Amino acid sequence: MAAPSSALRTLQLVQNKGLKRIFSGIQPTGIPHLGNYFGVITSWVKLQEECSSVLYSIVDLHSLTIPREPAVLRESILDITAVLLACGINPQRCFLFQQSQVPEHSQLSWVLGCLIGIPRLEHFPQWKLKKASQTSGGTVGLFTYPVLQAADILLYKSTHVPVGEDQILHLELTQDTARHFNKKYGEFFPVPKALLTSSKKVKSLRDPTSKMSKSDPHKLATVCITDSPEEIKLKFRKAVTDFTSEVTYDPEHRLGVSNLVAIHSAATGLSTEEVVQQSTGLDTAHYKAMVAEAVIEKLAPVRNEFKRLKEDKSYLEEVLSSGAEKARELAAPVYWEVKRLVGLN
Amino acid sequence: MAAPSSALRTLQLVQNKGLKRIFSGIQPTGIPHLGNYFGVITSWVKLQEECSSVLYSIVDLHSLTIPREPAVLRESILDITAVLLACGINPQRCFLFQQSQVPEHSQLSWVLGCLIGIPRLEHFPQWKLKKASQTSGGTVGLFTYPVLQAADILLYKSTHVPVGEDQILHLELTQDTARHFNKKYGEFFPVPKALLTSSKKVKSLRDPTSKMSKSDPHKLATVCITDSPEEIKLKFRKAVTDFTSEVTYDPEHRLGVSNLVAIHSAATGLSTEEVVQQSTGLDTAHYKAMVAEAVIEKLAPVRNEFKRLKEDKSYLEEVLSSGAEKARELAAPVYWEVKRLVGLN
Repeated sequence: MAAPSSALRTLQLVQNKGLKRIFSGIQPTGIPHLGNYFGVITSWVKLQEECSSVLYSIVDLHSLTIPREPAVLRESILDITAVLLACGINPQRCFLFQQSQVPEHSQLSWVLGCLIGIPRLEHFPQWKLKKASQTSGGTVGLFTYPVLQAADILLYKSTHVPVGEDQILHLELTQDTARHFNKKYGEFFPVPKALLTSSKKVKSLRDPTSKMSKSDPHKLATVCITDSPEEIKLKFRKAVTDFTSEVTYDPEHRLGVSNLVAIHSAATGLSTEEVVQQSTGLDTAHYKAMVAEAVIEKLAPVRNEFKRLKEDKSYLEEVLSSGAEKARELAAPVYWEVKRLVGLN
Repeated sequence: MAAPSSALRTLQLVQNKGLKRIFSGIQPTGIPHLGNYFGVITSWVKLQEECSSVLYSIVDLHSLTIPREPAVLRESILDITAVLLACGINPQRCFLFQQSQVPEHSQLSWVLGCLIGIPRLEHFPQWKLKKASQTSGGTVGLFTYPVLQAADILLYKSTHVPVGEDQILHLELTQDTARHFNKKYGEFFPVPKALLTSSKKVKSLRDPTSKMSKSDPHKLATVCITDSPEEIKLKFRKAVTDFTSEVTYDPEHRLGVSNLVAIHSAATGLSTEEVVQQSTGLDTAHYKAMVAEAVIEKLAPVRNEFKRLKEDKSYLEEVLSSGAEKARELAAPVYWEVKRLVGLN
């Protein structure tokens, strides 16, 4: 392995000085949409600026819990890498790496699985929702992914984890697992805390009662961050609003137009009040065009950079392999110590 | 890694020439007893002589499924290594290695777990038997150990697995997993076959209706292969037999004395008929002394060699680390190919 980079030296300090260490993961499941962009990705970019010790993992092992075409998965890993870099994730300020390139994730997962009771996993929503869709009755992977997730976090002795509401149960399992391990084998893992990030909730453009989603069957519902300007214009033009033409922000009663205002606000960095004020007198048709333009403008550099990066596959692979190397330098001594504590060496 | 040894070159041939490759594992759970010795261990020694490609793994990750004291587990790993070497396992003729030193076991286990349905695991006897004894309601480790076992076997593209009757279900799961993987991702894993070994069933010396067992609460029931001559004499003297004094081999009606005859036969290499004939005219008390002597004689070199090896911890560690290095040279390309097939690289 190469000599530790200055980023690595900073990360190594964490264990000694009680600094924050942040871990977060993203599944390679296709190009992110506006909701992901204004939610997770923007907050990731911000966190890498604010905190000296940040790890972002492309959690491809988790992707195997839902059947995927190998070629699609392979491409998705490069896609998400390119997207994250294009959005401003900077490998000099964080560790960006592919989970499956760091063997210690699966290894620690086995050890932690020997502490976690089966009944504990039966209540996870993803299991309850998705097991019926698998002919196997739900796989071991789908059932035990919260264990791997606990390993992802604890492997780096992470102190903080950005979480959405739907991730609270997962973080609790991780916290309890850290406590259980510490009680049994001696104080070792920090009990990671939730890092509440203020993320914008972006709704479907076709049905503003539900979240924007990659798997939405309606093609016009979801704006991907690499969509062309024409696609973005079309999707906003067709966005569902109500019969009132005026632009107001009233997410309880006027879901459609409020969603547009929220997107507009996120794209311009202005407050919702400011964008509403700017739009006084516009009817919804014109307002939709205005929001589309703001989104196009915001995403243009991302889209261009994404296209450029996707042409340069060897650079993306180099980013991932150097990220994995740095992550392993942190993971290996932690797992080595875990093995010593449990009696494997 | 060092240049491939000739043993390694032989093992590498297996994939090309359709030769047998045998995998078997043993848990480091204390010093083996006579039943283990005349069963698994003797057959392992024989197999390494008969087959050019044999892997024996000390499956310490499996040991974590039942709570163990770290110091005890650590010692047990060295104990079983010393026992196996003392019994004639020869690292020049097989790969002897510690499972946790080869990361690909846990890694492949995750991938295979994404193919195996939860309902399939619910019928495994170990799960049904032991989950109630764990306060957690049974851990993920205890529940999913058959998945790790499938990974242990398939990681080396093993073609044959020595199995006892209680392992049939496990092998079937491994076979089905290999077929499932091959169907989904293209022909890759051989479907491993059972290798039926003729193993002697040794019974408890205190209750000849049950098998000899390490966990028998009665101290005199079980002869460990490192017991002193005095301990062995005492245990056989106290062995439960019936009120007929004559020595006969009649395992249906005279369990106690037949167990002694079976042990005597295994220890001397003579048939049961031959040992019965040799013992004509002896009463049970004298016969017990005779069997004890045969066992003491058989185990003396094992015990001495075990004691010698246990003094030489660095040699044991060197055997394990060199075994792991050779095992990894086989495992790494297989797992790399698995990752490629499923789309992780």
